[in-house]
This record gives sequence, C-alpha cells and structure tokens, in this order.
Amino acid sequence: MLNLSHCLSVSCTCCQLLKTLTPEENGHCQRGLYFQDGQRHVDYVLTYALKKSSPGRSIRYSTHLLTENAVARSLRRSHQPSSTEKGSLSSQTSTLSNVDLHSPGEHFSGQEDQKNFRREEFEGKLRDMGLELEIDEDSKILGVGFVKIHAPWNVLCREAEFMKLKMPTKRVYEVKKSSGVIEKLNLLVSKVLEPLHPHVEERQPKNIKHLSHTFSREKQHLFDLSDKDSFFDSKTRSSIVSHTKICITSLLGSGVYTAAYPLHDLLYEEWANYSVFYKYQPIGLVRKYFGEKIGLYFAWLGLYTQMLIPASLVGVIVFLYGCATVDDNIPSMEICHQKNNITMCPLCDKVCSYWKLSSACGTARASHLFDNPATVFFSIFMALWAAMFMEHWKRRQMRLNYEWDLTGFEDEEDHPRAEYEFQVMQKSLSRDHKTQYKMEKLTCRDRLPAYMTNVVTMLSMIGVTFAIVFGVILYRISTKAALHMSSNPVTRNHVQLTVKTTAAIINLVVILILDEVYGAVARWLTVLEVPKTDKNFEERLIFKTFILKFVNAFTPIIYIAFFRGRLVGRPGNYLYVFESYRMEECTHGGCLMELCIQLSITMLGKQLIQNNLFEIGIPKLKKLIRYIQSKQGTFQEEERQKKLQRYETDQFLEPFSGLTPEYMEMNTQILHFFYTFDIFSPGIWYNIFFFYIFDIFSPGIWYNILRGVAKVAVIINAFVISFTSDFIPRMVYQYMYSPDGTMHGFVNHTLSYFNVSNFQEGKEPMDPMQLGYAVEICRYKDYREPPWSTTPYEISKEFWAVLAIRLAFVIIFQNVVMLMNDLVDWLIPDIPKDISLQIHKEKILLVDLFMKEEQGKSINLENSASEMNKCSRNNNTTAQLYMDSQIHTYQHT
Amino acid sequence: MLNLSHCLSVSCTCCQLLKTLTPEENGHCQRGLYFQDGQRHVDYVLTYALKKSSPGRSIRYSTHLLTENAVARSLRRSHQPSSTEKGSLSSQTSTLSNVDLHSPGEHFSGQEDQKNFRREEFEGKLRDMGLELEIDEDSKILGVGFVKIHAPWNVLCREAEFMKLKMPTKRVYEVKKSSGVIEKLNLLVSKVLEPLHPHVEERQPKNIKHLSHTFSREKQHLFDLSDKDSFFDSKTRSSIVSHTKICITSLLGSGVYTAAYPLHDLLYEEWANYSVFYKYQPIGLVRKYFGEKIGLYFAWLGLYTQMLIPASLVGVIVFLYGCATVDDNIPSMEICHQKNNITMCPLCDKVCSYWKLSSACGTARASHLFDNPATVFFSIFMALWAAMFMEHWKRRQMRLNYEWDLTGFEDEEDHPRAEYEFQVMQKSLSRDHKTQYKMEKLTCRDRLPAYMTNVVTMLSMIGVTFAIVFGVILYRISTKAALHMSSNPVTRNHVQLTVKTTAAIINLVVILILDEVYGAVARWLTVLEVPKTDKNFEERLIFKTFILKFVNAFTPIIYIAFFRGRLVGRPGNYLYVFESYRMEECTHGGCLMELCIQLSITMLGKQLIQNNLFEIGIPKLKKLIRYIQSKQGTFQEEERQKKLQRYETDQFLEPFSGLTPEYMEMNTQILHFFYTFDIFSPGIWYNIFFFYIFDIFSPGIWYNILRGVAKVAVIINAFVISFTSDFIPRMVYQYMYSPDGTMHGFVNHTLSYFNVSNFQEGKEPMDPMQLGYAVEICRYKDYREPPWSTTPYEISKEFWAVLAIRLAFVIIFQNVVMLMNDLVDWLIPDIPKDISLQIHKEKILLVDLFMKEEQGKSINLENSASEMNKCSRNNNTTAQLYMDSQIHTYQHT
Repeated sequence: MLNLSHCLSVSCTCCQLLKTLTPEENGHCQRGLYFQDGQRHVDYVLTYALKKSSPGRSIRYSTHLLTENAVARSLRRSHQPSSTEKGSLSSQTSTLSNVDLHSPGEHFSGQEDQKNFRREEFEGKLRDMGLELEIDEDSKILGVGFVKIHAPWNVLCREAEFMKLKMPTKRVYEVKKSSGVIEKLNLLVSKVLEPLHPHVEERQPKNIKHLSHTFSREKQHLFDLSDKDSFFDSKTRSSIVSHTKICITSLLGSGVYTAAYPLHDLLYEEWANYSVFYKYQPIGLVRKYFGEKIGLYFAWLGLYTQMLIPASLVGVIVFLYGCATVDDNIPSMEICHQKNNITMCPLCDKVCSYWKLSSACGTARASHLFDNPATVFFSIFMALWAAMFMEHWKRRQMRLNYEWDLTGFEDEEDHPRAEYEFQVMQKSLSRDHKTQYKMEKLTCRDRLPAYMTNVVTMLSMIGVTFAIVFGVILYRISTKAALHMSSNPVTRNHVQLTVKTTAAIINLVVILILDEVYGAVARWLTVLEVPKTDKNFEERLIFKTFILKFVNAFTPIIYIAFFRGRLVGRPGNYLYVFESYRMEECTHGGCLMELCIQLSITMLGKQLIQNNLFEIGIPKLKKLIRYIQSKQGTFQEEERQKKLQRYETDQFLEPFSGLTPEYMEMNTQILHFFYTFDIFSPGIWYNIFFFYIFDIFSPGIWYNILRGVAKVAVIINAFVISFTSDFIPRMVYQYMYSPDGTMHGFVNHTLSYFNVSNFQEGKEPMDPMQLGYAVEICRYKDYREPPWSTTPYEISKEFWAVLAIRLAFVIIFQNVVMLMNDLVDWLIPDIPKDISLQIHKEKILLVDLFMKEEQGKSINLENSASEMNKCSRNNNTTAQLYMDSQIHTYQHT
Repeated sequence: MLNLSHCLSVSCTCCQLLKTLTPEENGHCQRGLYFQDGQRHVDYVLTYALKKSSPGRSIRYSTHLLTENAVARSLRRSHQPSSTEKGSLSSQTSTLSNVDLHSPGEHFSGQEDQKNFRREEFEGKLRDMGLELEIDEDSKILGVGFVKIHAPWNVLCREAEFMKLKMPTKRVYEVKKSSGVIEKLNLLVSKVLEPLHPHVEERQPKNIKHLSHTFSREKQHLFDLSDKDSFFDSKTRSSIVSHTKICITSLLGSGVYTAAYPLHDLLYEEWANYSVFYKYQPIGLVRKYFGEKIGLYFAWLGLYTQMLIPASLVGVIVFLYGCATVDDNIPSMEICHQKNNITMCPLCDKVCSYWKLSSACGTARASHLFDNPATVFFSIFMALWAAMFMEHWKRRQMRLNYEWDLTGFEDEEDHPRAEYEFQVMQKSLSRDHKTQYKMEKLTCRDRLPAYMTNVVTMLSMIGVTFAIVFGVILYRISTKAALHMSSNPVTRNHVQLTVKTTAAIINLVVILILDEVYGAVARWLTVLEVPKTDKNFEERLIFKTFILKFVNAFTPIIYIAFFRGRLVGRPGNYLYVFESYRMEECTHGGCLMELCIQLSITMLGKQLIQNNLFEIGIPKLKKLIRYIQSKQGTFQEEERQKKLQRYETDQFLEPFSGLTPEYMEMNTQILHFFYTFDIFSPGIWYNIFFFYIFDIFSPGIWYNILRGVAKVAVIINAFVISFTSDFIPRMVYQYMYSPDGTMHGFVNHTLSYFNVSNFQEGKEPMDPMQLGYAVEICRYKDYREPPWSTTPYEISKEFWAVLAIRLAFVIIFQNVVMLMNDLVDWLIPDIPKDISLQIHKEKILLVDLFMKEEQGKSINLENSASEMNKCSRNNNTTAQLYMDSQIHTYQHT
C-alpha cells in the first residue's frame, strides 16, 4: 500500500491532534501519562467544569448517600482500609487542600451540589468495579477538574475475559511462506520496496507469530505475561475502561462531566507526516493506537490505491489505442474529407447560418479518442475491476480480522446517546403530570415532526439542485444566443469557448458550495432526528449526506449524458425553453466528449479545492480560533501551555465525535469511486489517473453503500455506452444497413434531410448565402423520414431499430456484468488460503497446547500430592479436574 | 408450520430408518444403548469385519508397539490400574474368552494382522483421550465386531469446553411476550391451533428459558448439572465423540473399520408417522435427535409451506379477476365477433386451407385468463414474495441459531474423505519408486482426467437433452402433418388434441427418466473427482445435479416461451426443418397458455410419480432386498433379528452418506421453487396451488443456489411478460397507434396482409375454396409491411417499436424488482427484534451473574478464611483472583 500524500490529508483530523499540540519534552509527557505516584498508567480521563466559587469536593464519606448496589457498597466498605483505595484517597486529600487555598468562600448552588453528588456516586461505582481514580482539580487549566482513571491488572484481566479478548499466548510458531512462484515474486518486490517501509520497531521477527487465545484468568499461565505493563496495549486498556463504565453518556449529556477521553500515545514520527508520504502505511501501528475502525479505513485506502495501478495502466493502453486508430476511423475520415460537402442546418435561430460538416473535423477526431471499441472494452474491464476490488477488500478484511484477533466488541457499544437520553427524560418529565408510568423510549409519534422535516428538507434540497442545474443550462443557452448576436467578431468567434468555460466554473463553484451546505443540512437533520445510538447517528448521517451529495454531484452529469441533445426537437419544429431559447445540441461526435470534459473539470476542481481548502485549511483555522479563545480567557496561558500534561493537552483537541469526520470524508471518496469505474469508464484514462493521484476509500458501513453504488454504476455504465456513445448506431449501420459491410456511409446514414422551405417563420437564417450558395436541403443529426416521404419528419424505422438494439445491449451488458461479478465472488474464496491454513494450524497447536497442559498437570499432581493445598492459580484447574474425574469414575464403576 | 404428508414423504430416508427396524421391546432396546454394566451409555459405535478364522484379539499389551504419542502412553501406563481403564479391561477380557470358544484355530493372515494392529493402536489412542471402550465380538451378527465407545463425564466436559459449546446455566429467566396487537393475535391463533401441536413432553414452561453460556470446566458451578446424564443430549454426546477421533476416515477407507455411527434415540411416536401429518413439526425435537442440518431442513419446509398460503390466495384472486373480465376483453370480443370476417392464412402447407379468425374465439377467451393486466401484477407480486421469503428465512435461521445455541461446530468437520485419503496413499505409493518425498495432496494435474471427463460428460448430457427436445418438436410437427393428411375425418378433427397429449406424455416420461439418469451421472462424476472433504463432495454433487436437472426440466419450457412461434418465417417464405416440416406456430392468443399447460402437466406428473414412486417405493424395495440378502446369509437370522440390540440393528440402516439424499431431494424442490414464483407467475394461480399441496424446500448450501435461481427467475419473468404475453403489444397499440385510445382495432393491427398469389409453388392450399369464397388477401400474425408497400413483407416500423418497448420493459422490470428486493432486504432486519432484545437481556443477566458470583466468592472467602485449603472447583477461581489482586496492589503501592 503506497501511502500517498493525499491519504494523509484525509486523515488530518486524527493526525493533527497529535501534531499540533504534542508537548515537546518527553519526560514531561511521560509524567502526564501516569498518576502522581508515577507508577499507575492513566487509561482514561474524565473532566468536569469547576466553578471557581465552588469548594472543590466536600469530604467524601460524609455525603455518601448511595442508594443502589448495596452489596457492592458493603463490599467496598469492608475493604476500605485496603491499599486499593489508599492511593486515590491520599492524592485526593492533597488535591483538596490545594483547592481550599484557591477558594476560601463557600457558595453552594443547588445545581452544582447535585452535580457533585452525582459525580461522587458515579465515581463510587467506578471504584466498586475495581478501578483506581485520581482527582486533580489543581490543574494548570483553570476551571477544569480531571478524574484520571487507572485500571489495575485484576480489573483488566476480568474485563478482558468478559469481553473475550484474544490475547497472545506464550506459544510462538513459525509462519511458513509457501514456496510458490508468486511468493518468490512477492519477496522480490518487497525487497525492492524495502526503503519504502516505515521504520517501525518490531518486537519479534516477522515470520514468528504468537498463538492467540481468548483470555481467561484461569488460564493466565498460558499467556505471555513477561511484561504485564504492555500485555494490554493502550488502545485495549482504554477500550476496557470505556467498556466498564456504562452510563457515562447520560452524565456527559446532563453536564455532570464535560468530557471523557482516553489518552493517546504517540504515532507521530513515522506516519503522520507529509515527508514520509511515499512510505507504506504501518496499518498495524495505526490500528494499535486508533483502534480497528481507523485501521480498517487506512487499509481500505491502501488497497484502493494499489488496485488503481492496473486500472490506470489499462486506461493508458486504451487511450493509446484510441490515438493510434484515429486515422483509420472511417466516420471521422468521412467528416473531414473535403469532397463530402454535406450542408448542415443552422445551430441556432436567425443569427446562425448553414455550415459544412467538414468544419467539425477536429471534434470528430477528438471524439474518437473517447468513443471507440476499446472504451467499451475498458468499461467492461472496469466493472470487473470493481468486482475484483470488492472481493479483495473482503479478503483484506478477513486477513486483518485474523491478524488483529478481532472480536468485534467495538460494535457492541450501543449505549444510547446523551441527546437521546435527554429527550427521553424531558418527555417523561412532561408526561409525569398527566400519566403515571415513565416512558422508556421515543416512539414514532414523537419523532414524526422530525421525520416530516427530514423528508421535506431533503426533497426541497434536491429541488434546489435541479433548479440550479436548470439555471446553468439557461445561462449557457442565453449567453450563447446573446454572444452570437454580438457585433464584435472576436466575441462571436469564441462563443463556444467563453460559454463552456464560464458555465463549467459556475457549475464547479455551485457544487462546492452546495456540498458544504448539504453536509451541514444533513448533520442538522440527523441531530433533529435524535437517533438512539452513535451507530444509528452515523448511519443516518451518512445516508443523508450521501443522497444529497450524490444528487448534487451527478445531476449536471446525468443531464449531459442522457438528456442533452435529445430534447432538441427538429428543424422547423425546435423545442424552446421560455418560448425563445432553443435547447442545446451536442457536437457531431455525440455528447460523450463533453461528458468527459465536464467530469474532469468538476473532479479536478473538487479534489484540489476541497482537499486542500476544506480539509487542511479549515481545521487549522478552527484550532487557531479555539486556541485564541482559551488564551483570552486566562492570563498566563502561554507559559502554562508549555508545562501542560498529557491529559491536559488532550483537552484542546476537537471534541471526539466518533469517526464521523473521517467517514464524512469518505462520502466524497465514494462519489469518486463511482466516477472512477463507472460513468467514466467509457470515458478516458486520465481521469483514472486523477483518481490515482487524488483518491481513496472507505470501510465498514460504507461497504453496503458501495455495493449499491456498484450496482447503479453498472446500469448507468450500460446506458452511457449504448445511448451516449455512438457505439450501437455504428454497429447497427455496419451489420444492418451498410451495403458493403463497412462503415463507409455511416455519417450520411445518421443525418436526416430537411427542406429549408419548412422553416418556421422568423426562424430561418438571416444570412442564407453564407456558404456561398443557395441551400435547399440541409442535414441534421437524427433518424427521421425525409421531406419527400409520405410522413415527412416522422421518426423513422431506423430510429426504432437502433433504440431496440440499444436497449438489448443494456440488458446484455447489465446481466453479463452481474454474472461476471457473481463468478468473481464465487471463484475467489473469501478467506485467503494462507489464512485458512494458518487458522487450521493454530487450532491444532491449541489442541496440542491444552493436551500437554492437562498431562503436565496430572504428572505434576502425582509427583507432589502433598502440595495440594498450594492450589496456585497456575495449575489448580486441571489438577482439580483430574481429581474430579477420578472420583467420578469411582462412583460410576 | 403445517406438517403435511408430503413433507414426511421427503424425509423418508431419515424416518424409515427408525420405523422399519426399531426393536419392539423397550427394555431390550434400553439394554442395547448401554455397556454391559448397564451404566455407561453407548455414544458411538465402530464396527469391523471379523474373519471367522481369525483369533479375535490377541493379548493387547504384548503386541503394543505404539510409536507415537510417547507422553500420552507413559501417562496411560502410569494409570493402568486406575478405574478408568478397569471397566473396559474387564469387559474386554470377558469378550476375549467368548471369542476364544468360537474360534479355536489360529490362522494369521498378514493383512488381518496388520488391521488388527492398527485397530489396537487406534483404540489405544482413544483410551488415551479418556474414552471408554467395550469390544463385543460375540454379537448376534456373525462376522462383525463392535467397538462401543462411551465418553465419560470428564471427557465430555473437556471436549465441550474445547468446542465452545453453549450449555444452559442454572439461571433461568422469563421471556416476556410483548403486549402488542400482533402478539395477542398470535396467541389467539396458537390457541385455536392447539390440537395441531404435537404432544411433546416439555421439561420446562415455555416462557422460561435457561441462560446459555459457553461451557467451561472452571465455571461448572454455573451450569445446571442436576442431571448429569442428560446435561449433554445424545446428539451432543455423539458429536463430541466424533469430534475427538480425527483419523477414523482413513481407517474406514483402508478397511480397518467397516462402519462408524452414533446411536440414534427414538423419535417415532409423534412425528415420523403419516397419521399425524396435520400437526405442527416439532422442529426442536427433530434437531435434538438428527442435528442442526436436518432440523434446518424441516424448518425450511415449514416456512415454505407457510409462505405459500398468501401467494396462493393472491393467485386465486388474480384468476377470479381474469374470469370476471373475460367478457369485457375487447381483443377477444373482436375475435369472436362474427362480423369481423377476417380470413387467416393456412396453418400448414397444402392440406390446410384458409380459416376464419372467429373460429379461434374459444382459445382467445381462454388466453385472457392467463394473460391479463392482473397476471402482470401477480408476477411482480411473486417476485416480491420471493424476496420476502428469502428474508424471512434469514430471520428464521437467526431465531433457530439463537434458540439452539448454535456454534457452527458441525461445519468444521472437514476431515478428508476416505476415498480421497486412499487416492493420496496410492499416489504416494506409486511415486515412492521414483521420487523421495511423499505427496501430501492431489494436485490439479492428478485431477485433470477427472475434470476433463466431467466437462465432456456434462456437455454431452446437455446435448442429449437438447436433442431430445428437438426430437419431441419434430415428433409434433411430423405427426401433425401426417394426421392432417389422414383420410379419417375423426382423426383430422382431433389433430391438436392427439398431438398435444401424446407429446406432453412423451415429454414427461423423458424428463422423469433423464432425471434419474442425470442424478446417477452426477454422482458418478463426483465420485470420479475424488473431492477432499464431505462438504466438498456435497457441494460438487449438488452443483452438477442442479445444472443437469435444470437443463432437463427447463429446455422444453424455454423453447415454448421464447422460440416457438418466432422462428416460423412468413407466408410465402416459411422456415422448414429438414426441408419439409414447417415450424410450429402458437395459437392466436400467444404461447402463454400453451406454456402454462405444459408446465402444469410436467410438474403435476413429476410430483405425483417422483414423490410416490422414487421416494417411497424404491427405498422400501432397497431395504427389502438388503433384508433378504442378509437373511440368506445366515440361518437363524429371523429369531436373532428380534433379539438384536440397538447398536446391532443400526447396522442394517443404509450406510450413512451425509445428508446428501435429503439434499438431493431438495434439488427437485429448488426447481419447483423456480417454477412457482417465476416462470409461472405470469401464468396462473392453480399451479401455485399444486405447489402448495406438493411442495417444500431447503437450507444451507442451497441458499446460494436459491439466490442464483431467484436472480435468473427475475430476468426470465421479465422476458415472459414482455415477449410471451401480449401485454406490451396491447399497451403499444393503445397509447401509440389506437385512433381513439381504446383497444378497438388491436386484432387488426397485429395481423399483416398476404397476397395469396405470392405463395411458393406447391405450398398453396389444395382446397382454396373451403370457406366458400375465393381468397385474394389472407392475414397472418406478424408486424410486416403489406404486399402493396415499396418493401413488401419486410419487417415494419411497428415491429421495431414494439421490440424497443418490450426491451425497455425488461430493463425496467428487472431493475425495479431488484430495487424492491434490496429494499425488502434493507427494511426487514436480519435479526428479529425480540431475539435481539433477548440477546441484549441475556448479556446483562450474564454480567450480573458473573458480578454476583465474584462478590459472593469474596464474601465467602472472608467468612471462612480457614477453609482455604478446601479450594474446591466451585469458588477457587475468584477467591484466588481476589488474593492475587491484593498482592498485586500491595506491590504497587
């Protein structure tokens, strides 16, 4: 996986938090990571607002009024003098004395009191669970109190067992590399790319792997506990702690606590840095510090970038094929040939005159680059590519799941969001006056107003998009007409250029602005809905954002691909907008070229501006503002800032709002994925190249959206090939109408005849003699009956024949691609073979390990029957079992 | 789930094994289920051939030459006097003395010796694993030795822990029924259906559920061990045993053992019995005795039957709609109207003459029943139905997984098949002469001949099917021509009837015969391939059988739906087969009616004959033959049969070949599923009704095939509506060509004109005046230019227009249905809400249970610190942990 600079720009939100505010002094930093005693690691931090006037904490045990969890409390009381409590108690008392110096006045406000009480109650519960707390109200940030949480070894073990975490055992084994040719090739490639790998310190040789097993306290002796401090890494520790505390969200919601976050370790050196962009991504490290979700995200990016290499190679070949065959292309030869003196009907009313087809020679030749048999092949190739990509992603995910020993516990954190609980509380409060029982959840009825607002807003937003696209079309038509009437010949000569450039810029600006607006609207609507859990929130937000941004990005493109040039009418009976503007036509080569140009401009602009302005500029600006704000609030902030401890600096990071910002970014990426393989594929290679430089993609929930996108993509792709390109008309001509089976005469066949006497009054050209001769019959691109037929200007049989073949092509294309996708899905196993072999091997090793253990114990047992009362945790289990089984057998026989 | 009789007929293979050979005496039966001591339950049985001349077992420990597993052996030796071994040893010695009486001669043959040795080695290993064996060579079946295996409690526990089996804990909780309207309705329904439920003894009230947890020996106290004998049910016991022994397959393959099977308990009374067919299926019981796979199969049958009820109801309504509107149908009115004196061109050369369209009145009216707007609606409905069905199946599966505490361990039994190991052995033997190293697996090269045979045979089988279908077509054409020329007027009047009936019967017979042949061919081909595991074998067999049977069943139907009547040519230029037979035409109403008739005959016949003859008759016959054969072999067999013990009677069952016979049957069912919702849906309701009476379906691996079938079905469905029915031409006429926007004139519009002077020479009718007047212009059904156009008899513009609309309809239909399927998939959650709530609840209960346990232990610990050395398995764990944590804390502070 090449770690390109753009990948990093995406991950800004999570990298910058390390980059900007990391304290320089390492020793200092170390101090912030531990309790006052310098021994116990801070695994999690809670913060709360400290009223300057408030008296800090009152003496704990006098206000102790816990009503719940009586057993736990009695248990805790019986242990009060134990050392578990001692540490936190002492640090707390020291804090108290400090605070007392600061605030001599005692102003109890009722609300503050209540919050204090709830805080104490909650912290009591945490202590009951075995967690150790240290309260720091004397921090260098005024008005903020910190509760540092440390999970001692026994709590970590208990929770790890309960969460069924897979941990490495003592048993190591060698991962055998298969000796196949592919493997050797891989080895060679990896040697060549050696310098690109990040310098990550590896604790163990690469081909040695620890056998993992679900952690269990009874089997602790099986695990590699040589270094207890690092057995659970910081990510695991903080997720264990956050797993322990269940109701923190509601406390956060009601303002009892202001924030809850784990401490981040450092991952700055080798990765979150532009200067090493060419290096491979240390996915393992990313995962270790940021968790599985972000790890998967970067794995996705890597795979996408990797997979784009073959796609862009094939794209280049297709483009070169187009270049090489442009001189052999009969239709463009016919257009360019001076002898084919075909007179075309005027492109606009009155001011435009008749024109020679040969003047469209350049466009026709350029169109061939975008529209030749190879692009059809490329289109099919890209559909297959997308299927392969999906399949590879599945495999990559499997591999990561295996390598990371994932258990999926992260998904299970579906506690209600604070906002939701607040709403429920409010509702039950308002109900209490009338009815007796408390409401437990929000019903559909409660949510109806929000849902209605959602639907109405979404529809009106889509309406706005349509209106804007229509506005741009009107702008193009009217400006063109106005410029054509201009008296300045220079202006008239550059009509096309001027109109297209300005329209494209307007389009781009509108898309960019609406993208931001829609992002905000989607978030607002989701907040309005009050989804129950964070996962719900994420899903709904992503769905809405996707819909809005999709419509925004693709409406102009869909217009060009399928409607432009089709709603024109015919000479003598043109279609008019607002009774004066004729609809746009495509150039002679079809709209495909214009489609590609429009796409390139939109995407390039979007990438450049969005990636650099919105993703890098704006977050930096925000951070600056936050910094300045907090600066204004205090006097000696600047000096303090330098001495801040880790748990304090993390305060300045943006509030942790799940992964949504990263995932939001993926929204853009999904659209790009769509662009890439889809609408684009009958288009041209260099767009692929843009993606290659600028693009990326996403995991998880997105997989479903992606699959949907891939399905839609296949259909749109089929339509683009059969309706936007000239592929089908050419085929039909060659095999059904051509007198000699070649393409000669194709251009003539696609042009219908028009008798100039049939022009509507006032619409005929003002200067009919511009070409130097009087025109009686002009030609236009359509399949219609000639003026001399019994039904002049009616749609002709050829039109229906071509339409039928086009539709047949769509059916065939769609189903062939779907079949191929299913085949790819079926042929490539979801679990990579080496992984499944390794899993099998591990299973055997585990059996072996357990069998040996049991035997070892039983021998042990016999050898030292006198040591029965030892009964230490390392071998009581199996010894006991063996005894039991013997007793059992005696009873039976 | 209604348990209809046909469901049972399908499950014959597994029911009859209980039905036919169950010993009557219950006490006798009981005896067979236990070891000689009457205490230890027989969990698994191995049999081996006993040469009459062989000396039984030689003294075990003298021939002991185990080379592997040294630790295990030494362990076993050190335990030799222990009671674990005593039981089996004593029973063995007693057996030995018996055998010695039988066979006084000692003829050591080398091969027998080797087998004996390997058997002993293997049994030694089993003993090492803690299993208890009893060898019975003195059984009433001569020449067969039995090794009965009993898994003692500690082995069961160990393996259950290792297999991560979920077992019920002591903790019970009440399953709350939601109080919604639907729930009340359900309650009412279930009360009404009370007598239909089987009388299954329930051990606990329905709304009480045991909390399940992964079994662990250290936590034994959590589990409900009140009845240790029934804690692991017989299915679990035998799967635990079969999980223990890994290499039995290769021993079976090399003939060391002849069979390996678990003992079946009884499930005869309430279920495997025709007389209770109307009762609900006790899925839970089925699963308990036959395992998850068969349980799922019956759950599938139940769901399918259930889901067919709404489908057939809607089908009836659609049919009634067709009946009600037949008199308002303008096209058939126009055909029947005597004034519309349309003269049609002759239906065959020479012998047929012109005919009046009004004579097709009956067919036209009947066609309306099959081909009206409601059938199009029904078609879409059925597509949706299929999606709903799939979704419901997913949910049902989820529910069963939850209720049965499935862990999926059954899927993991992927040991190589005996045949495969034999092949590998042979290969390595033949290689040993040339190369040094042993081969570990069969490569693609080894399999190339088998693969080639597969491909060639499959292709030639498909070729045979096509040839036969073509043969039937030829039969129809030629017989028709011959009968038309007959001098007997009765024969000539019944031409259609005679030809259709005989052709349908021939078709049916051919399909039935080929079905059996193809089943055998598929099995032969799969055996030839030597797949590695049983799962592989099953998959490949199913795939091949499906392909062959699918082609066999659907080729004639596809022909009628899409080709018949389309390859006819036109008057004056007909298409001829073998230069003398004109291709068949459809009746005026289109081929849809003929399609439906053909389908009904094929399916009804297939169901009646296959279900009753092949599935009930043939297995009974086979059993009879086996019985007679074994009877001939021995003298006193009859008396012995009565006294046989359970493990002996099971010998007479068909060799256990996985689930394939049942799954094979599902092959037929899949085709029916296909018929039902698919090709049929534009057809008619009563076919649905047939299915309702006769049909069923399948789980597991089949789900993928089914999904494939559903996809193909949607496409074929779209094509049947748009191409086989007259739906699209009617629409096109009404909205594009009709002068007044009604259907008046539709019949005239679909008929082209033919000038009789353009007949080929010798093809014109012999009796042109049959209608009583001279015909100049006759009509035929096609969209072609009239004789007076500039391009006479060319395909007309209308043809292309209709074709384009037809194809557009296919695209729209396919994509709308796919979208709806995705919507259904998205809207209906995969996990039923009550299940997900219950899972959540169980999780909380488990946390609670563990927390209480830990607290209870610690209190316990303090109260009785003196009892430390007790350290029994019930509370050592947490007490120990508590101690450790305290030590840990002391060290830290």
